[in-house]
Amino acid sequence: MKIGMLPASEVQLSAVKYDLGDLQAPRLTGLSLKLFVTLIQAPLIGSLITAYLRKQNKMDEVLRHAVIPEAPMFKPEFPPPPQEQEAGVVCLEEDGKPEDRVESACRCLPHHDPASTWNSESTSFRYWKIRDYAYAYRSGLITPSMVAEHVISAVEECKNITPLLISFDPDEVRKQAAASSQRFAEGNPLSILDGIFMAVKDDIDCYPHPTKGGTTWLHDVRPVNKDGVCVSRLRRCGVIFVGKANMHELGMGVTGLNPHHGTPRNPHDPQRYPGGSSSGPAAIVASGICPAALGSDAGGSIRIPASLCGVVGLKTTYGRTDTRGTLWAPGTVEVIGPIASSVDDVMLIYAAMLGSSPADKISLRPPTPCFPNLSSNGSSIASFPMRLGKYTEWFDDVNSPDISDVCGQVLASLSEMHGCEIVEITIPELQQMRIAHVVSYACESLCSLLPEFQNGKFQKLASDSRINLAIAQSFTASDYVAAQRLRRRLMYYHMEIFKKVDIIVTPSTGMTAPIIHPTALEGGESDIEVTGSLMKFAVTANVLGFPAISVPVGYDEQGLPIGLQLIGRPWCEATILRLAATIEQQWNEPKRRPVIYFDVTKGK
Amino acid sequence: MKIGMLPASEVQLSAVKYDLGDLQAPRLTGLSLKLFVTLIQAPLIGSLITAYLRKQNKMDEVLRHAVIPEAPMFKPEFPPPPQEQEAGVVCLEEDGKPEDRVESACRCLPHHDPASTWNSESTSFRYWKIRDYAYAYRSGLITPSMVAEHVISAVEECKNITPLLISFDPDEVRKQAAASSQRFAEGNPLSILDGIFMAVKDDIDCYPHPTKGGTTWLHDVRPVNKDGVCVSRLRRCGVIFVGKANMHELGMGVTGLNPHHGTPRNPHDPQRYPGGSSSGPAAIVASGICPAALGSDAGGSIRIPASLCGVVGLKTTYGRTDTRGTLWAPGTVEVIGPIASSVDDVMLIYAAMLGSSPADKISLRPPTPCFPNLSSNGSSIASFPMRLGKYTEWFDDVNSPDISDVCGQVLASLSEMHGCEIVEITIPELQQMRIAHVVSYACESLCSLLPEFQNGKFQKLASDSRINLAIAQSFTASDYVAAQRLRRRLMYYHMEIFKKVDIIVTPSTGMTAPIIHPTALEGGESDIEVTGSLMKFAVTANVLGFPAISVPVGYDEQGLPIGLQLIGRPWCEATILRLAATIEQQWNEPKRRPVIYFDVTKGK
Repeated sequence: MKIGMLPASEVQLSAVKYDLGDLQAPRLTGLSLKLFVTLIQAPLIGSLITAYLRKQNKMDEVLRHAVIPEAPMFKPEFPPPPQEQEAGVVCLEEDGKPEDRVESACRCLPHHDPASTWNSESTSFRYWKIRDYAYAYRSGLITPSMVAEHVISAVEECKNITPLLISFDPDEVRKQAAASSQRFAEGNPLSILDGIFMAVKDDIDCYPHPTKGGTTWLHDVRPVNKDGVCVSRLRRCGVIFVGKANMHELGMGVTGLNPHHGTPRNPHDPQRYPGGSSSGPAAIVASGICPAALGSDAGGSIRIPASLCGVVGLKTTYGRTDTRGTLWAPGTVEVIGPIASSVDDVMLIYAAMLGSSPADKISLRPPTPCFPNLSSNGSSIASFPMRLGKYTEWFDDVNSPDISDVCGQVLASLSEMHGCEIVEITIPELQQMRIAHVVSYACESLCSLLPEFQNGKFQKLASDSRINLAIAQSFTASDYVAAQRLRRRLMYYHMEIFKKVDIIVTPSTGMTAPIIHPTALEGGESDIEVTGSLMKFAVTANVLGFPAISVPVGYDEQGLPIGLQLIGRPWCEATILRLAATIEQQWNEPKRRPVIYFDVTKGK
Repeated sequence: MKIGMLPASEVQLSAVKYDLGDLQAPRLTGLSLKLFVTLIQAPLIGSLITAYLRKQNKMDEVLRHAVIPEAPMFKPEFPPPPQEQEAGVVCLEEDGKPEDRVESACRCLPHHDPASTWNSESTSFRYWKIRDYAYAYRSGLITPSMVAEHVISAVEECKNITPLLISFDPDEVRKQAAASSQRFAEGNPLSILDGIFMAVKDDIDCYPHPTKGGTTWLHDVRPVNKDGVCVSRLRRCGVIFVGKANMHELGMGVTGLNPHHGTPRNPHDPQRYPGGSSSGPAAIVASGICPAALGSDAGGSIRIPASLCGVVGLKTTYGRTDTRGTLWAPGTVEVIGPIASSVDDVMLIYAAMLGSSPADKISLRPPTPCFPNLSSNGSSIASFPMRLGKYTEWFDDVNSPDISDVCGQVLASLSEMHGCEIVEITIPELQQMRIAHVVSYACESLCSLLPEFQNGKFQKLASDSRINLAIAQSFTASDYVAAQRLRRRLMYYHMEIFKKVDIIVTPSTGMTAPIIHPTALEGGESDIEVTGSLMKFAVTANVLGFPAISVPVGYDEQGLPIGLQLIGRPWCEATILRLAATIEQQWNEPKRRPVIYFDVTKGK
């Protein structure tokens, strides 16, 4: 059966029907999972199973039977950005010193008075911000070395309950903290980030730690001898790295389950997943141990755990940050980005780490990175009105009405308080988007790892990784090219939509933090339905390289955090950061203290 | 077994060993071919055979076992061109009128006196040039309608011996010729190309002809309702299109064998192949019926038949011409380009047809196209000294010493007469180049055609196409990505080489025109060894998108034409055209009249 497709430019956007069905595959744990993994790896029956799964999920229909009129777009190709600069932004020097960019970013931040924070007796919960630490260090209230001891005891205390770090060396932390304390003592801090504690996801190099990517063996075949580019920029600003944060093995899942290194818990409910694959980075920030962490996002891996843990996660534009010195250097969907407890902290970290790789500078020609200037007037920080695109059928296709209600209320209030215009949009071919994502991401990862697998390392992977990679192995080169043809269609549709709206708004996930089934912790788990629900809104920004941010906006009735996602035009991080900061200020419901929380400025 | 690879930047170019072995597969015709095709398409045994072929040709070793440190480069990404303009060039307006560009190009051409050509009684063979036709039309010596009748009778006369055209409509030709004659009668020709007869390869749309791509069915599923972009630019200049030229089915072979529409013969020896896949375009030009034709080149498909037929073929830089309105719109290796009997005619056609597609303008940022100004002084047309890179081991790895001797003599004379410096170079990983090419080209073609094949059209293909597509189907998505990683390595090496040389010179093919086995004509043929030899020097320009030209430089001892290939830096068509024109002037051996030749200015 051959399926004709109209050229994207002839598709009537207004007539589009919502098409994102649920993913089809049985939930598996324990013995059934073991059996399934054995079968899917078996020579003949394995290809029958993968063929069945592809068919059930309409992959063959989309990739092999459809005549896709568009040429392949192998990585996001952005139309030239508009000539006129957005109003109220400050441009940062991409090739300048990270510490200078941080200083510029600092001047863009909304008003915050750390002195009053430190002196306040308020009992309502809030996280310490980078500016709070910076103030305290400069005022001599605390030193990085004091905080280091609290961080170390917090990490060790929760090691068995919630394994946040895969690689951790207290002496290495103490050494960095001592150097930072020394700089403060001498009155020469490197930047506002000096003495700020950060964790780094285990797929980003952070010397002298190994990079395991959540596996048990990857560091043996890929030794680390220097920092990743982003890490080195942050280190230059004085950041103290506490270690390598836990992750879903090889980034191949979004719950955070890791049978090798243990599964970090959601700080808001230790019976639940933190989300992934940047599970450790989100959980360690939400637990108060670090004000920020570095994650990577190839399919929501920053935004999903940020949302589930009630913190902020930024996925930058494809190519805006340099992925050299990571496991993923460089595919067509991944970026590195910050997770922090507030939008201003995300901005500071992002300012330090940004800067495209030389190859991306040639092929993508990134425009100068801009920051929203939020400093002038704390009460009215946004240059509104913004036009926010909402695809209601998609927006409301969530597991709990709490999610769409809470996110919807934010939109209503943005409309009411800031004159934002909520524009109803439709987005064609979301199913194709999901398929284009799976094929691109899975196969690019597989390609990097295949020589290792040929060499016997496949058997050392967790069950769900093995299933995912078996499916990835079943995709042909032609499937890959077809997925890239879809990418060009999807880019066209979204560029049309971005003519009418400034930002596309969605919930960050289709469900709040899922329950951890006890059987999963040891034997692993494959739950495609949960995966699909968590990733429901995530992959657009990966397939098309758009910047996107998840900001916490409330809780469901079980007290689990809900995130709102803002997807921006390519390179327009400034726009989504501006709106995210507005939402953060706007959101009046008191934040809830996570069950797992440490105040590392004070210790116990 | 895992194979480590050094990053390309750490590979010692000078220590490289020549690695391009012969391709391994049995030559098949008749019954053995039929059996093999049946087996390779069978579900289980087919995958065993393709696995065996992949292994024999080291594809699995290169694509699945090697740890390739480079990131994928999905299509040629060129470093920014040097700021300073090459000396002695004229820039053409890419977005201007084709007829204006032709006029500018015309002023760049070396001196030629059509009047003396027409009056000369010389018996030594030469082709009529575009400027000869233009002079004769303007002087009233002949009219396009007169030539049309000779073209029509020539095509019909040789229809059964050498089927040059797949689609041909004498009335349509007469109509165009009459319109052109009318313009001359009124003194208003559109350009120097007015009244010039051209054939168009059957994979490029030329209304009202169908586009079959050399198959029997493709036009049924892909109707043509307008000219391809390149064709329409030429038509605007007054070109008369004689019809759709024969080709190797779907461009999947380089001999020109076509069991559906018949196999065009090499005009220099009707027992031999013309080369392909642009078999018809090269043969019709070499036969004197058209001064020029349009071909496409995804793996030597312009340069190979041009070389075998003793004419000139230009493969432009990837993205320099617009492939909209062709079967291949747009893969990562194909371009459209002219075949003509002289370098100046290639330049005129190229000037008319050039201009990047809007998508390529965004992603490739092509610099302004430049033409070498060859007009000033007919005897010293080149702004030498040029540095010519020669990889002797590769250069000499040909089936007959005549090829390397004749090509070597040209280099010697360039060095002697024009002070060209012959620089000995080594090129690493030519085997990887070949594999990267096969995977990219085969799988991109397969992806376009797969929905048709799912729909039963596969069985209508020739045997060799089926074998090639069966192998293409066996490549995984991960293989495709690995091939693109190789592309980045190979680009690095060549950019290093292009720091030391201006042009890389090779023979155009590893053999002169191969014999047609009579069994092949009906039942088809698969001869990987011949394919490998014909393509031995071709794919670099496709994988890396470089411009390349094949110029005839002599004959082997059987009187078969030998071509020399010049590979230039990206976008530097001017450089290779300049040297090609010099070689053409330099080459003193009298050209031999092909066995199949028509003087269409005179008729029989």
